[in-house]
Amino acid sequence: MGFNSLGKVGLVGVGAVGGFYGGLLARSGQDVHFLFRSDYEFAVKNGLKVTTCLDEPDRFRLNPLQAYRFAEEIGHCDWLIVAAKATANQNLLEALQPLVGSSTSLLTLQNGMGNVEFLRNAFGSDRRIVGGLCFTCSNRVAPCEVENYFPGYVQFGESEGPLSREGEQVMKAFQYAGISCQAADSLEDALWRKLCWNVPFNGLTVTAGGITTDLILQDKELTRRARCLMNEIQAAAAAYEVMIEDEFLEWQFELTLPMGAYKPSSLLDFLAGREVEIESIFGEPLRRGTRVNVHMPELQRLYGQLNGLK
Amino acid sequence: MGFNSLGKVGLVGVGAVGGFYGGLLARSGQDVHFLFRSDYEFAVKNGLKVTTCLDEPDRFRLNPLQAYRFAEEIGHCDWLIVAAKATANQNLLEALQPLVGSSTSLLTLQNGMGNVEFLRNAFGSDRRIVGGLCFTCSNRVAPCEVENYFPGYVQFGESEGPLSREGEQVMKAFQYAGISCQAADSLEDALWRKLCWNVPFNGLTVTAGGITTDLILQDKELTRRARCLMNEIQAAAAAYEVMIEDEFLEWQFELTLPMGAYKPSSLLDFLAGREVEIESIFGEPLRRGTRVNVHMPELQRLYGQLNGLK
Repeated sequence: MGFNSLGKVGLVGVGAVGGFYGGLLARSGQDVHFLFRSDYEFAVKNGLKVTTCLDEPDRFRLNPLQAYRFAEEIGHCDWLIVAAKATANQNLLEALQPLVGSSTSLLTLQNGMGNVEFLRNAFGSDRRIVGGLCFTCSNRVAPCEVENYFPGYVQFGESEGPLSREGEQVMKAFQYAGISCQAADSLEDALWRKLCWNVPFNGLTVTAGGITTDLILQDKELTRRARCLMNEIQAAAAAYEVMIEDEFLEWQFELTLPMGAYKPSSLLDFLAGREVEIESIFGEPLRRGTRVNVHMPELQRLYGQLNGLK
Repeated sequence: MGFNSLGKVGLVGVGAVGGFYGGLLARSGQDVHFLFRSDYEFAVKNGLKVTTCLDEPDRFRLNPLQAYRFAEEIGHCDWLIVAAKATANQNLLEALQPLVGSSTSLLTLQNGMGNVEFLRNAFGSDRRIVGGLCFTCSNRVAPCEVENYFPGYVQFGESEGPLSREGEQVMKAFQYAGISCQAADSLEDALWRKLCWNVPFNGLTVTAGGITTDLILQDKELTRRARCLMNEIQAAAAAYEVMIEDEFLEWQFELTLPMGAYKPSSLLDFLAGREVEIESIFGEPLRRGTRVNVHMPELQRLYGQLNGLK
């Protein structure tokens, strides 16, 4: 598998996820242009420091970095990677506009549901938009410094069905950069499945007072609620003809057991006083389920509790 | 669950595992005495720095640290925690001797099989010896600086059967320190089960040339060999009346899938030029299986290849 250039790549949202994947892509030889806001000065001076894995020698620093303060300085891209928080979507549009030309393809690495639709509404229905679901643990530990604790993988999918040629192309670039990848049969299937874990474990660890996942599994009532939430997601997915097996739900518990005292991303946001991605992870699946008359009382309750904590 | 003192605790092997658990125990109020070799000067000056999890605010530094250069300065302990590499066992005995009095209980956090037996041979058959199997990812990134990337859990077991009162006591101290814990029905059961993952994935990632676990799963021949190795471990365990279900073996693959480009501990040792724990992870289960006439050709081959790389 050789190197294939993605052309000019713009990256917006150089946080834990964007810094990690963007850093790996740039190291592998892709022409990545990083758009910074507050960290710009720091990026010019120090570059981007990435710890890619559990292994000491895998630490690297990109310096100088193709860092920009204004999207206009970058201009139209062949690929635009959106890794900003989904909570920032509305403010994002203005920043993205100068980067998107008539032939720009988009890849969103954002959490939860509705991100592809948001970009499609903004940039046109005939545009190639790929979703990349990130199963990984990364953390922005300082300005322009990202640590990846667990490599994990990225699942690539598109709304129209199997991956297009462009989707395959961007996936291959990730693989060449050393990232484990999977192609999803459809983005919808992958998204609903990811929510089977994210909704209960991201949500309940926050609403139960900021506890780790092992304490969810040790508490009968919280485990019962986690099961209910999974069943509601399963029912909503089925209404959209995404069939999720009961065994898949069981596997979510088996995966969580060895994680121990794990803190999901929403819990980390909550504990750090950052905004939790309530709408994309909880609000949007609730609205989609309710729209097709799926009864989701446990998710309704969780969504209300999360909004009450704001 | 309140604090319960373990009395005077000695800790030998302040590396990735010992530094992480010892640091958490000391922070929780336990009276931990750390025995250092080459890092002693550094420990006195800078203390022990621990990053406990994926969360920035969880970084802490113990300074001053109860650090010692000679075991004689510590003297007899109520609990002695052995976290040194199993490869160092023979050289360890001399260092441990001054720490072990007539009523000292031992906890080994070492990898693989034979560690409890080794300590029993050295310190007497009527001594309380507890095994703690660590499912976690930690790394020593600098002298006296340990990072924990994935919290995971510790499984406590004893050879005689269920946990004794002393075993329960040390497990509760770990829990009070914030560590996720489980009690194993028996140490033998827990050990053979852990080897079902460790033998194929620690071994094959090394012998296949230093590759990550995702590449094992993507390669048909390596996946086939991983299955064979698991089946051989399952057969050897059964000969010792430890019954491991086929579903458990299947689950090992399902756990590995989301890990992505993961580097098991033996691979990290191999890549860093450190000695791989060949005997405790591969040699000892092979000898135990062979002793009761279980045919283990795939493990024999792997063991030979690992020794050939030395």
